[in-house]
Amino acid sequence: MKIALAQLNYIIGDFNFNTQKIISAIYEAKSKGADLVVFAELSVCGYPPRDFLEFSEFIESCENSARQIAKECTGIACIIGIPTKNPKVQGKDLFNSAYFIENGTIKSVVNKALLPNYDVFDEYRYFEPAIDFKCVDFMGCKIALTICEDLWNINDNPMYVTCPMDMLIGEKPDLMINIAASPFAYNHDEERVLILGDNCRKYQLPLFYVNQVGAQTEIIFDGGSLVFDETGSLLDEMPYFTEELKVYEFDQGRVKGLKPVEHYPQGDIKQIHDALVLGIKDYFQKSGFSKAVLGLSGGIDSALVCALAAEALGPENVMAVLMPSEFSSDHSIEDALDLVKNLGCMHEVIPIKEATLAFQNMMKPVFKDLPFSVAEENMQARSRAIVVMAMSNKFGYILLNTSNKSECAVGYGTLYGDMAGAIGVLGDVYKTQVYKLANYINRDRSIIPQNSIVKPPSAELRPGQKDSDSLPEYDVLDAVLFQYIELKKGSESIIQLGFDEALVRKVLKMVNVAEFKRNQAPPILRVSPKAFGMGRRMPVVGKYLG
Amino acid sequence: MKIALAQLNYIIGDFNFNTQKIISAIYEAKSKGADLVVFAELSVCGYPPRDFLEFSEFIESCENSARQIAKECTGIACIIGIPTKNPKVQGKDLFNSAYFIENGTIKSVVNKALLPNYDVFDEYRYFEPAIDFKCVDFMGCKIALTICEDLWNINDNPMYVTCPMDMLIGEKPDLMINIAASPFAYNHDEERVLILGDNCRKYQLPLFYVNQVGAQTEIIFDGGSLVFDETGSLLDEMPYFTEELKVYEFDQGRVKGLKPVEHYPQGDIKQIHDALVLGIKDYFQKSGFSKAVLGLSGGIDSALVCALAAEALGPENVMAVLMPSEFSSDHSIEDALDLVKNLGCMHEVIPIKEATLAFQNMMKPVFKDLPFSVAEENMQARSRAIVVMAMSNKFGYILLNTSNKSECAVGYGTLYGDMAGAIGVLGDVYKTQVYKLANYINRDRSIIPQNSIVKPPSAELRPGQKDSDSLPEYDVLDAVLFQYIELKKGSESIIQLGFDEALVRKVLKMVNVAEFKRNQAPPILRVSPKAFGMGRRMPVVGKYLG
Repeated sequence: MKIALAQLNYIIGDFNFNTQKIISAIYEAKSKGADLVVFAELSVCGYPPRDFLEFSEFIESCENSARQIAKECTGIACIIGIPTKNPKVQGKDLFNSAYFIENGTIKSVVNKALLPNYDVFDEYRYFEPAIDFKCVDFMGCKIALTICEDLWNINDNPMYVTCPMDMLIGEKPDLMINIAASPFAYNHDEERVLILGDNCRKYQLPLFYVNQVGAQTEIIFDGGSLVFDETGSLLDEMPYFTEELKVYEFDQGRVKGLKPVEHYPQGDIKQIHDALVLGIKDYFQKSGFSKAVLGLSGGIDSALVCALAAEALGPENVMAVLMPSEFSSDHSIEDALDLVKNLGCMHEVIPIKEATLAFQNMMKPVFKDLPFSVAEENMQARSRAIVVMAMSNKFGYILLNTSNKSECAVGYGTLYGDMAGAIGVLGDVYKTQVYKLANYINRDRSIIPQNSIVKPPSAELRPGQKDSDSLPEYDVLDAVLFQYIELKKGSESIIQLGFDEALVRKVLKMVNVAEFKRNQAPPILRVSPKAFGMGRRMPVVGKYLG
Repeated sequence: MKIALAQLNYIIGDFNFNTQKIISAIYEAKSKGADLVVFAELSVCGYPPRDFLEFSEFIESCENSARQIAKECTGIACIIGIPTKNPKVQGKDLFNSAYFIENGTIKSVVNKALLPNYDVFDEYRYFEPAIDFKCVDFMGCKIALTICEDLWNINDNPMYVTCPMDMLIGEKPDLMINIAASPFAYNHDEERVLILGDNCRKYQLPLFYVNQVGAQTEIIFDGGSLVFDETGSLLDEMPYFTEELKVYEFDQGRVKGLKPVEHYPQGDIKQIHDALVLGIKDYFQKSGFSKAVLGLSGGIDSALVCALAAEALGPENVMAVLMPSEFSSDHSIEDALDLVKNLGCMHEVIPIKEATLAFQNMMKPVFKDLPFSVAEENMQARSRAIVVMAMSNKFGYILLNTSNKSECAVGYGTLYGDMAGAIGVLGDVYKTQVYKLANYINRDRSIIPQNSIVKPPSAELRPGQKDSDSLPEYDVLDAVLFQYIELKKGSESIIQLGFDEALVRKVLKMVNVAEFKRNQAPPILRVSPKAFGMGRRMPVVGKYLG
């Protein structure tokens, strides 16, 4: 039996687009001699459809797509992912399902049992977990077909009380197929290879695993579909961050013609780079926009975003706006202009002095002679936001946000100022990783000026200002933030690791009081196991642990 | 047996505050002769604690509070709500529990089985559902103790496959007690009385039901704790939107000394009014702020927010900023000044002409002679945001957002402009309801100037502009929005109701393309069954149903 894995990039809710893409892949797989072609979880509607699932017209569109796909599926079988109605009155109204389609008809329906409901996942919001399990018979083989999380309840501290493969193994299946929508995080590919291999070792079965690829607002699917033999050895790894259809041969209980390969760790920084480029590209393509605007300060964050955007959209589609103030140093403007030249993107220089003077005058009767404070600093950042948003409104550019994860964490940014933007490119990238990414961008030739990389970080909102005036050095800050955000350790546990007590309490307090700012931040491209946004849901009003 | 219901207002994560409040209520109940005092769901930590629950230091603080409460709980028993650790390795690590405390020790633990995971609820994100059910013995009675949703799986289309009371009834309990955190929506009090009464009728048992009161950012708990007899007749209804402790007598299977009462429908508009006032008050008190700032345009929305804020915080704590432009009509300024006088709040007049001129000049080299467009309109709205945020940054005022639900829905507002603010007061109130609320504010004396109520709504961002230039009349618009948002009907179903097809498609499209704006809007005080914010989770990038 020849099995094709179709690792494709879907658009949420674009039934025409997804259906045509699936049908084309069915024809391609057939032309390559495949007997079965496998698509990812919820491939018919894209993942995650979120509250679209609560609209019955949406579910009807899914069913309609499945009918169209089935009609084209002759001389080959296929597996698609689709939400389906729960026929029982008790329980939630939907299942997260796989259709096994053969000879133009839906031959079997498999429902997902383990519904992830942590971090960015909300599946239990919509779906009833399956309680019945049955293998699919195809060409004399018994296929243990499961959906994503169904294979993840293995080893220590299982999150669920049932284990689908423990039920299916009783039927003595010949192979496992798993259809997934497993999002990227820089450590997740290693984890996937390990967990899926553990399933093969436990059940002594080969596994064909197909993942989605493509970005859906903040969530980035990295592809990297996998094939394992019955000893848990990895036999093939499909490419990351790109679409692919590949045909494998399975015969007499074994995958044919492939030798074990090593999972090659690509390096976190390369992966993050590729994920961010895909994240920007898909945000624009899937929203029907092509041109980006951003404020270019001469600092490293906006330089990096500009370079990533140029790669994702083409430099001719990137407009960098330099908005110097009286506090901008000369080298900032030069560094920004150097970058623009190196990338070949568009630029404008729009000084903000006139606006800040206007606001100072306007506020004078109220502010009187009160000293310069964060109010005046924020006026500058917000005046810049008005300029880039005016460019956006006038010309249809989409504003890219350049705040990094360290800043977002401690609230070192101006709400409605530099925190503005349609999508946060670096909001899940700590400042220490920003430097590494900048060097990665410069791996072949100098693109980001060395000066932007080596100079001390500064918001340049008052004379001689440096980030280190208000914040700990970034290597220490990022280390504390990682413990609090990624590892969810409280202050006591972090202090026990040897960090300075006053510093830990100060940092955690900054993170907590910035919750109201992050609550209004743009969606952030998620590249870590714990990004700000839909995956981290904290009360805005409340008392935090000290 | 005397049972006290303690309907209290908790602060999420403020263990000292909550613990002291619970202990005081224990003493008060004891002094009133109660044998048992009942607190609401998750009373120890406040509801909803959200991802705080993923921090082990948070769970330890809950346990520590329970120990302190138990120590003080002698000569009386109490029931508190608390997250507890799941002792089994399989399944999620926590339960949503009730402790029954007697003689200073935790005598029994009851876990919640039905975990709401829809709209604003995410309980399955954290908690394992209970599978064991057992009544609590106290003073010779068997108490069927359940937690909130556990009583809601009744009648048609049950959302869950288990029903806790069906299991508990086998032990022949004498009464039901339910501890809840049931949020306000203008139709929810009627629903509660109905569903809880249905439980009494089905199981032929009396019920003591205690709810939380108080606002937690967007979610407002309205209290209104209830007592029913064994026929499902309502015997008592505790007050709404305020704390209360009340003692009831239960003897030989019956509630003593109370006659059936009617649930008195308070009227949606009065309820919404009370909810919004409490929502503003608690947002400020629980975040440690006292003073509000808002832009006062002379229109009805900002007038209403100003009046509500004056009621919640005292007029002396409300700063109204009038920011006229060249497009503001004279009567707008007069109307705003009239309101300020009627309320007795503070005000400043800060014209924005200088700022808008500055931006026009700054953009001139880029915009050249392109015609006046939404870019110039937004510059005005964003300049106003800079002014009020400068007031906030300089003086510590918190900015109130005044966008109504109709505007939020169709994206008729400027991101980083009039969409700015810490909390959205009217974001769940349709424009047609705004008028009713304004008239309610004026029920005793004229506070909101009649002119603000009767004049045609306008953003005043260009000469002679009216809302009706871009939007359908609000009564039609709101009717369509209600079908789409509250009732989750798609375009086909709405058109079938008799609305004009082109209008329906236009409105739904406006709602959909504004998703990216709402994604960055402030938290919105939730007063309807479907508010924008955490209860409505739509993809930002995706293709919507036409």
